[in-house]
Amino acid sequence: MNNHLEVWSQFELELAGSKSGNPFLDVTLSAVFTFQHRSIEVNGFYDGNGLYRVRFMPDTVGEWRYRTISNLDELDGITGSFICSPALPDNHGPVRVENTFHFAYTDGTPFYQVGTTCYVWNHQGDELETQTLDTLRTAPFNKLRMCVFPKDYLYNKNEPLYYPFERTENGSWDFTRFNPDYFHHLEQRVGDLLALGIEADIILFHPYDRWGFATMDRETDDLYLRYVVARLSAYRNVWWSMANEFDLMRQKSMADWDRFFRVVQENDPYQHLRSIHNCRGFYDHGKPWVTHQSIQHSDLPSTEHWRNQFRKPVVVDECCYEGNNPKGWGNITAQEMTHRFWEGTVRGGYVGHGETYLHPEDILWWSKGGVLHGQSPERIAFLRQIMEAGPAQGLEPVSDVAYPEYPAACKGDAYFLIYFGIKQPAEMTFTLPLNNHYTGEIIDTWAMTVTPWGQNLLGEFTAQLPGKPYIAVRFQKM
Amino acid sequence: MNNHLEVWSQFELELAGSKSGNPFLDVTLSAVFTFQHRSIEVNGFYDGNGLYRVRFMPDTVGEWRYRTISNLDELDGITGSFICSPALPDNHGPVRVENTFHFAYTDGTPFYQVGTTCYVWNHQGDELETQTLDTLRTAPFNKLRMCVFPKDYLYNKNEPLYYPFERTENGSWDFTRFNPDYFHHLEQRVGDLLALGIEADIILFHPYDRWGFATMDRETDDLYLRYVVARLSAYRNVWWSMANEFDLMRQKSMADWDRFFRVVQENDPYQHLRSIHNCRGFYDHGKPWVTHQSIQHSDLPSTEHWRNQFRKPVVVDECCYEGNNPKGWGNITAQEMTHRFWEGTVRGGYVGHGETYLHPEDILWWSKGGVLHGQSPERIAFLRQIMEAGPAQGLEPVSDVAYPEYPAACKGDAYFLIYFGIKQPAEMTFTLPLNNHYTGEIIDTWAMTVTPWGQNLLGEFTAQLPGKPYIAVRFQKM
Repeated sequence: MNNHLEVWSQFELELAGSKSGNPFLDVTLSAVFTFQHRSIEVNGFYDGNGLYRVRFMPDTVGEWRYRTISNLDELDGITGSFICSPALPDNHGPVRVENTFHFAYTDGTPFYQVGTTCYVWNHQGDELETQTLDTLRTAPFNKLRMCVFPKDYLYNKNEPLYYPFERTENGSWDFTRFNPDYFHHLEQRVGDLLALGIEADIILFHPYDRWGFATMDRETDDLYLRYVVARLSAYRNVWWSMANEFDLMRQKSMADWDRFFRVVQENDPYQHLRSIHNCRGFYDHGKPWVTHQSIQHSDLPSTEHWRNQFRKPVVVDECCYEGNNPKGWGNITAQEMTHRFWEGTVRGGYVGHGETYLHPEDILWWSKGGVLHGQSPERIAFLRQIMEAGPAQGLEPVSDVAYPEYPAACKGDAYFLIYFGIKQPAEMTFTLPLNNHYTGEIIDTWAMTVTPWGQNLLGEFTAQLPGKPYIAVRFQKM
Repeated sequence: MNNHLEVWSQFELELAGSKSGNPFLDVTLSAVFTFQHRSIEVNGFYDGNGLYRVRFMPDTVGEWRYRTISNLDELDGITGSFICSPALPDNHGPVRVENTFHFAYTDGTPFYQVGTTCYVWNHQGDELETQTLDTLRTAPFNKLRMCVFPKDYLYNKNEPLYYPFERTENGSWDFTRFNPDYFHHLEQRVGDLLALGIEADIILFHPYDRWGFATMDRETDDLYLRYVVARLSAYRNVWWSMANEFDLMRQKSMADWDRFFRVVQENDPYQHLRSIHNCRGFYDHGKPWVTHQSIQHSDLPSTEHWRNQFRKPVVVDECCYEGNNPKGWGNITAQEMTHRFWEGTVRGGYVGHGETYLHPEDILWWSKGGVLHGQSPERIAFLRQIMEAGPAQGLEPVSDVAYPEYPAACKGDAYFLIYFGIKQPAEMTFTLPLNNHYTGEIIDTWAMTVTPWGQNLLGEFTAQLPGKPYIAVRFQKM
């Protein structure tokens, strides 16, 4: 048992106990972790083979003590302690909402969300999953959306390697008995992402189902949620997405979705980020348990509207996918994907990538991972560099730097980023504050170049632009 | 005096009379033109130098008789006749609304509106105006929007060669005395367009004014309208646009616009097409005197909505201009302009071109004419060929040929044109009627190629597509 570990990493208590009856249902187990006068109660879970576990993610350096609580004598009243040491350089803690519309790690390091989607990459077998991890190692993404359950959909007809539940003798699911192997594998992949510095946006429900996981009853749904949260919440890179396209799951009511949020919130000691992804209509992101808006929509200019409406970060997790498949959501160009990233960014939001090029073996990145075929990821990497070189705590949309119809972002009067999108002005009148001097740079978002363009700029002035699409201009206080 | 002329051309009666007082106000003159038992009363006008004119456009082959009516004895009761001969091959008569949403010449020849805009090309002097006509000779446009009044706006600061009114001794305008030279020149240019087979969409009012023509009083406005209509309505290529960006003319009320429509309608014996162009909010195109919708808007997919809303042809006369100027309306790419033409076309509407590349002498096509610099006109010419090779009486939008989100147009079950826009599908499932066989062709709207692609197609089938943007597919009954 580890007794010395880094802050925001995972302490795990493994306990042996009876496996009689149905330990998933019959055994209660938790542990109270105490730092000085602060105590946190954390649920444990049954992991099969007579082993029970409690996982905990300490958030404070120093000595933590714990004591277990269980209805099984052999699991109850077990005590211990460990020393929590400072974070190593790449560990900044879980991501939180920062400055109303933005994100930061717990230690204050800005987190500029650059997402992608590989819905069921974790159900494709080690060879392909390893290839996906290799791809992610050099890709620009720091968040990945993935499902707990397997997926049945266009280009997704293969059976998963593992199933989340045991089967009864007649072959139907025993929804009261989880399959620990399934969750070990899921945890391995969440951990693999953590090692790559990638947040795992865990999609708890989705409608693309032929196994019955989309139509479980209320008690099963809640049992499942509590089990997943008990197993995964100590991973600092976890985000919770209640569903993908929740509005396509006809068997669930809005009351169900509200309850799912509450079950997750009540069982997660760390209050990881929580959201829910739509097909058409949005869930009410104003509800208090929603931490940020996870949006499927093609109209990136609406980012400002959504910010204003709900006063929470906007993450356009799905703005169509770069690719060439027949579906309207799956065949935008790399230019358009890059454009949507820039449009959402200068509107004060965050955007998600995905890729859906047809593949002879149906290995489309958006669902199964593998390798990337498109041209947008390197441009998205370039945008990430621009964002990370920008001011901390994110950009706010502003409308009076260039002609009002061009989207622009600022940070106070220190930084301005204007983006002209598909428009190709050859000159432009800008209006900068009069009390500072600025450097100006031309950013070609497609060619990925930054060209110095002016010094000592202030007030109103007219300047030449390249006269082609996908150009941005950056002004920074000298 | 001509006494033998082609149908739909112009018969002109020139009469000498007193020029005492103010003939523009004091003299009433009309003529009744009679064919068998049908009579049409047409207004005349004073043309300066003691000359009065009545113009008439006969619509029927045979003998026409006329008799003048005037409060001046020397102009009253003059009679005569002329023979109207059949139309020569290029003369199809004025353009009318056809089949609810489309246009045709009076003889039934389809008119596929392919517009452009040169707002004040007719105020630029003979050299540039001749160059504009030379450009139009080989350009794809069959309708041109142009203003009666000169224009004061960005890139438009030059004085016109002529002014529409005489000046009083103190230098202000005498709004009761028109300047015949001004109108002679206007008529020459309308006639030049007619000779090129181009409809002249005459913009009667506009807000870009430093001379006072946008702020005349009610009586002057009406006098002006009657005068212009008396002079120009016998040109068969005239369309009437009450205004450009009517909603920017703050001095005019909605009652004024309604009245202008009625004045034009009441004074135009031929009922030329009538519309009005907006900046932001639309005029109510449902009003009975509006023959078609002249729209400024960037959202071409709304074409179907506008059709359904008003049940009149949709002409998106302004969808932004190809160019590189700083304004958002003036710097879309040739790709985007071409794309908007296709999008509007397969939605069952018509689109207008314009071009606004910066020019060292401020000669921007959109306003002054000259030469074309852009890359969209040749693609628009290609689209016009596609339209003219298609079924008569226009295309209707349809949504169930390809995946429903791709716009498509059809003509019954004989013709289908599907356009994928910026999307780049590499394959697609189509659903054609089962009771016919079709040929299929791939149209690259940017490369301007038509590639045979299939024979004997019917029912539902999946086929390869190029996997790049700006592709259309055409199916025609074999």
